[in-house]
Amino acid sequence: MTNKILAAMVVLLVTAAAAVAQSTVPIARPRASDLGLKVGILPAGSLDAITDVAGVEVGQTTIIRGGDVRTGVTAILPHPGNLFREKVPGAVFVGNAFGKLAGSTQVNELGEIETPILLTSTLSVPRVADALIDYMLALPGNEDVESINPLVGETNDGYLNDIRERHITREDVFTAIKNAKGGPVEEGSVGAGTGTVAFGFKGGIGTSSRRLPPKLGGYTVGVLVQTNFGGVLTMAGAPVGRELGRYYLREELQQEGSPNRSGKRIGDDRRRDRRARGGTEPEEDGVEGNARAGAHGLCGL
Amino acid sequence: MTNKILAAMVVLLVTAAAAVAQSTVPIARPRASDLGLKVGILPAGSLDAITDVAGVEVGQTTIIRGGDVRTGVTAILPHPGNLFREKVPGAVFVGNAFGKLAGSTQVNELGEIETPILLTSTLSVPRVADALIDYMLALPGNEDVESINPLVGETNDGYLNDIRERHITREDVFTAIKNAKGGPVEEGSVGAGTGTVAFGFKGGIGTSSRRLPPKLGGYTVGVLVQTNFGGVLTMAGAPVGRELGRYYLREELQQEGSPNRSGKRIGDDRRRDRRARGGTEPEEDGVEGNARAGAHGLCGL
Amino acid sequence: MTNKILAAMVVLLVTAAAAVAQSTVPIARPRASDLGLKVGILPAGSLDAITDVAGVEVGQTTIIRGGDVRTGVTAILPHPGNLFREKVPGAVFVGNAFGKLAGSTQVNELGEIETPILLTSTLSVPRVADALIDYMLALPGNEDVESINPLVGETNDGYLNDIRERHITREDVFTAIKNAKGGPVEEGSVGAGTGTVAFGFKGGIGTSSRRLPPKLGGYTVGVLVQTNFGGVLTMAGAPVGRELGRYYLREELQQEGSPNRSGKRIGDDRRRDRRARGGTEPEEDGVEGNARAGAHGLCGL
Amino acid sequence: MTNKILAAMVVLLVTAAAAVAQSTVPIARPRASDLGLKVGILPAGSLDAITDVAGVEVGQTTIIRGGDVRTGVTAILPHPGNLFREKVPGAVFVGNAFGKLAGSTQVNELGEIETPILLTSTLSVPRVADALIDYMLALPGNEDVESINPLVGETNDGYLNDIRERHITREDVFTAIKNAKGGPVEEGSVGAGTGTVAFGFKGGIGTSSRRLPPKLGGYTVGVLVQTNFGGVLTMAGAPVGRELGRYYLREELQQEGSPNRSGKRIGDDRRRDRRARGGTEPEEDGVEGNARAGAHGLCGL
Repeated sequence: MTNKILAAMVVLLVTAAAAVAQSTVPIARPRASDLGLKVGILPAGSLDAITDVAGVEVGQTTIIRGGDVRTGVTAILPHPGNLFREKVPGAVFVGNAFGKLAGSTQVNELGEIETPILLTSTLSVPRVADALIDYMLALPGNEDVESINPLVGETNDGYLNDIRERHITREDVFTAIKNAKGGPVEEGSVGAGTGTVAFGFKGGIGTSSRRLPPKLGGYTVGVLVQTNFGGVLTMAGAPVGRELGRYYLREELQQEGSPNRSGKRIGDDRRRDRRARGGTEPEEDGVEGNARAGAHGLCGL
Repeated sequence: MTNKILAAMVVLLVTAAAAVAQSTVPIARPRASDLGLKVGILPAGSLDAITDVAGVEVGQTTIIRGGDVRTGVTAILPHPGNLFREKVPGAVFVGNAFGKLAGSTQVNELGEIETPILLTSTLSVPRVADALIDYMLALPGNEDVESINPLVGETNDGYLNDIRERHITREDVFTAIKNAKGGPVEEGSVGAGTGTVAFGFKGGIGTSSRRLPPKLGGYTVGVLVQTNFGGVLTMAGAPVGRELGRYYLREELQQEGSPNRSGKRIGDDRRRDRRARGGTEPEEDGVEGNARAGAHGLCGL
Repeated sequence: MTNKILAAMVVLLVTAAAAVAQSTVPIARPRASDLGLKVGILPAGSLDAITDVAGVEVGQTTIIRGGDVRTGVTAILPHPGNLFREKVPGAVFVGNAFGKLAGSTQVNELGEIETPILLTSTLSVPRVADALIDYMLALPGNEDVESINPLVGETNDGYLNDIRERHITREDVFTAIKNAKGGPVEEGSVGAGTGTVAFGFKGGIGTSSRRLPPKLGGYTVGVLVQTNFGGVLTMAGAPVGRELGRYYLREELQQEGSPNRSGKRIGDDRRRDRRARGGTEPEEDGVEGNARAGAHGLCGL
Repeated sequence: MTNKILAAMVVLLVTAAAAVAQSTVPIARPRASDLGLKVGILPAGSLDAITDVAGVEVGQTTIIRGGDVRTGVTAILPHPGNLFREKVPGAVFVGNAFGKLAGSTQVNELGEIETPILLTSTLSVPRVADALIDYMLALPGNEDVESINPLVGETNDGYLNDIRERHITREDVFTAIKNAKGGPVEEGSVGAGTGTVAFGFKGGIGTSSRRLPPKLGGYTVGVLVQTNFGGVLTMAGAPVGRELGRYYLREELQQEGSPNRSGKRIGDDRRRDRRARGGTEPEEDGVEGNARAGAHGLCGL
């Protein structure tokens, strides 16, 4: 199996007010919605991004060096202020806990998020969390803070990235946080998605939003996903992965009888034996075809 | 309230075989059992320590510098081998999740512990976890490991320690792990307990064990506690804290009517306003008089 | 919104051996697979039913009386023996806990199922559980049983059924259990699905199975669903609900601006105000388009 | 082992206002506080009972017939009104889930209690829950209720009670609810505690309360416990069970070497082999000496 990798990290933010913003950045590749792909029945916000939720900012550090460093940090700021002093309600939902996220226990105990939400590479979670502590302790108003709960999610970019070396530095974390802004969000092989793989294709960072009708409150729901999982790519119902012959378990199924074996694989066998624990397979099946079910879901509003 | 601080970290290990060892270290202060204090009905193991569980080793780094650095690391090794290659069954129970422990989600998902269990100071959890990753990745046999779950518990030693500076280094972590051994365990103001406070008295590291009768399997249960909480010190039922006039809520209760207000306080008002969240009070009450209810409980066997 | 009703109850059974059976019952309406609708990439078992898992039996009692009694019981037997004496590993996953299922706490504590799994109507859970106790206590070999954990799931059939009267009797429960058998499973408006509604259409009982390739163990996974929820009906990716103009929030969305199409509603306003708790909406969104995410998932193997 | 029975059921209620009431009922046996036993440091409310919490009412049905029917129902009403229409915030904490309580999943999902809290005998939970549904549906204002979550806790009184026959009727439930009132609470072998056993002694219903100092809000916390567990009876620190030679594991420990003292056992061997599942032993140890850690904790305020 070539791409039974890890799990998605989903960040969800909700607000009562739809943001107004104007998308002006040039995007080289079209987004799904640009192609007319409409998922679900609710209208998207103006940016179709997590930043449609008022106050939310996103910043990313992308690290690409040589042939084997592909990693980064994605920072989501629920609001641009001092989050320790103005905490936001939040929750962490764990779908597949074969992950090393930091901060979930306190968030679920107190129902509050008190730092930016950072996404990164699995083995870099502690370094990123430590840098996040640095950042928070240094904020004006936090001079006497002696306890803080850094919230850092992750997926494993070890397939494309030299993960053991943990190339992300304190400065990379600071840069991601400090560059965070509203407006369009960079998607694809950027930030914490620089080295991720999904459905046998290149994964990355994606974002979207939906707007409830005014009579249901007019709330805007935003989501940001770090995709890194296997499955069968489906776009608004279309079985893209199956049509293109690139999907979870394809080889195993072909060996069972069907003749078609020429599908090109994105990966090789490096990771094949690395994670043989069957206990997490059902969760991977669970996210098959539905990234919304995701893995860890960090939710702040 | 002077010492409503944080929460205990309890590590529990169970084995089927009682260890045989000879206590030879000189202990300046008597242990409770040396004074004839017997808690519960089960006999203790030969050391009355977590190391009575066969194979378990404990190592500690104690950091005391000047007047305000009081911190450290306590390492519990479920066995002396490569834990990633020979994982042990384990679980994490969270009593009061106003804590920043690392690694609990995966332990509870997979039911396995794959690194030493480290205890430390709250804000140092990420650095200690990162050093633990270093240690594990460098072990012979782990050359291709790309995902590992460092397990690090904590309590907040910020009352006696300059916690914001995070004085624990990579070498301190390595030292604690490498010095781990069986036999008697150093207790008191050592390792992760160097700067902790409990019941208004100096807290620290403590350990004990109990042995089941042979007809119930003869199992040995060991526990190691990083005490750091308020409450009313009770020793085998004796209301020591109340008798000595040093306990949780004493001032508040005295203001309500009783005249006795001359009890000496161990602390001052520095921390008085730092943690006003009522949501965690019940848990603190819960541990009052019973450290066994503890906070996070890491259990490996 | 006419049919934002309740939640699905999913029962999942897994086994290592694919059952071989011959479908002989006449089925008036085609199943999705008969129409060539293929969901996912794995092959179905021979029956495409939960009974493809060896030993699993299903029995149902359908209660239809007059114009307003539409309810019933569906019994899933993990194996035909005395389940209290031969328990099966199991788990209950709760997606949307606005449900009144019985037995989940013990199942998740002990990891075992010790009775048949019954599905029924919300308000009838206690009566059905009590009858299940009767059934189990009376089994040969259970003469001295003084503690047993009846496992009963539910969805609310109050839209089509006079639910307050709880028309299900002890005999109805016994009949469902005693009639349980392997082979094809009756689907649609039967058993616990007699009065349920899904996606604005008539809901009911459905079942399916998937078979893993031999090199992955050859396991057969079976599922039985009691559908009772809103959302947008999607069949193998095709937006059937949207095309037919019958879906969750249709009215609210049309009021926002689009010309009001005259899609016929299956419901009326009876239930409109009954459940206004927004807290469960996200879960409903969660199951939108993916019944597999379901609500309570009872899993035995 | 004679009394390794089941688990406590603890109900905890909190309010902001201390109730004022006058204890006038004659109590044959003294309460612990009457004997001067003071547990903890906080003052009790005027009744030292859960009914010190304003609005809380308790009613009980005690069923004693012949030599082997010893069971009953205890009803706690968070307030005397229609609880479905005026729900109260609540939570259920499960310490040892080898229990068959009803209603916990919804309470923890929605954070609300919408019926009286009933305690009863394990196998009678479904009948009591069904009667509670009857009671609630019939209340004025509930004519159109089609979904309600009966909350019923239990412990197993099968040691002294003919539990398999489930002697509790609908009328017994109604009587307990309708007789609920404020003021002193009957304790001991009454209601759901009629047939319970604790620490090798007769268990039953107990209640207490504590009052916070005014500067901490002046809240009153009330608790009602259905005691049914093993362990070592300890009263305000005094090792009563050990002194009287009646405690958990006494026989096993004596066989190990100490001269076999002839302490009288309350029980016989009837239950000795009935529950051999080691998985729950730790929880029993956990409640040893501290009923507050209890098993299921229902908390409403």
